[in-house]
Amino acid sequence: MKDLNDLFVHLLKDVYYAEKQILKALPKMAKAAQTPELKKAFETHREETEGQVERLQQVFEMMNKPARGVKCDAIEGLVDEAKEVMDEAEAPEVMDAGLLASAQAVEHYEMARYGTLIAWAGQLKMPEAAKLFEATLTEEKNADKLLSALASRSVNRKAA
Amino acid sequence: MKDLNDLFVHLLKDVYYAEKQILKALPKMAKAAQTPELKKAFETHREETEGQVERLQQVFEMMNKPARGVKCDAIEGLVDEAKEVMDEAEAPEVMDAGLLASAQAVEHYEMARYGTLIAWAGQLKMPEAAKLFEATLTEEKNADKLLSALASRSVNRKAA
Repeated sequence: MKDLNDLFVHLLKDVYYAEKQILKALPKMAKAAQTPELKKAFETHREETEGQVERLQQVFEMMNKPARGVKCDAIEGLVDEAKEVMDEAEAPEVMDAGLLASAQAVEHYEMARYGTLIAWAGQLKMPEAAKLFEATLTEEKNADKLLSALASRSVNRKAA
Repeated sequence: MKDLNDLFVHLLKDVYYAEKQILKALPKMAKAAQTPELKKAFETHREETEGQVERLQQVFEMMNKPARGVKCDAIEGLVDEAKEVMDEAEAPEVMDAGLLASAQAVEHYEMARYGTLIAWAGQLKMPEAAKLFEATLTEEKNADKLLSALASRSVNRKAA
């Protein structure tokens, strides 16, 4: 990696891989969740994630590069943590509180990465790409807020 | 894991392990960083992280449990991404932009986890623990803001 453009393309591939992993994980999390609102939140976010994958594909197109992921160790670890919750939770309330927390850790990873992509796209004079990343970042922040509200309103209370 | 208390203890151990990994990674990142301000930011954050480890130890003490970590796949993945940057960056400016971004991904992981610990401590009626986590969360948010400012002011510009 020789310059910011190389870093940008590498991170784009990393995030593309991450979103694909999230697309696979969310239906399992929705299936495992017991609280109907949490189930719905995961399903809605899965639909949003499809749009986020499309935005990444648009950026690959802008750069005349094939949309291709590169293995992202961070998302693998984050998804493994969610799987661990699904394996080890011995009560539905515990499952929900743990899954919700895992999902928020994933959201935060994405927030960090889209924040970086926005900054790098700005530096590389790619305002259209930055706009696409901003749309996704807003969705991630809103998804995180929704989960926080759901945690304090019901999920954590039921698990306590 | 049968209840929120079990989840809380598990996450406490997870974050304790993560902070220890971060303590090991930051000196390497400080050594690799070229921009003096970035080097300094990593060094300062290493000192802060020592205090954060102590706060976690205080919470273990409150619960009469030995301070012990449990392997956290997410932080392993995040630290691996920082190592990848150190291995693959072919120019000092690229190194700095990549390391800074990796550090922000780590900060965001911690923000998510301390946010959850605060919520769970509240639910479990552990206000003293919540206060300790809040002090750490504030440090993490400030560290992240400092890195964002540093990125836009100098690091990303130099890499472009």
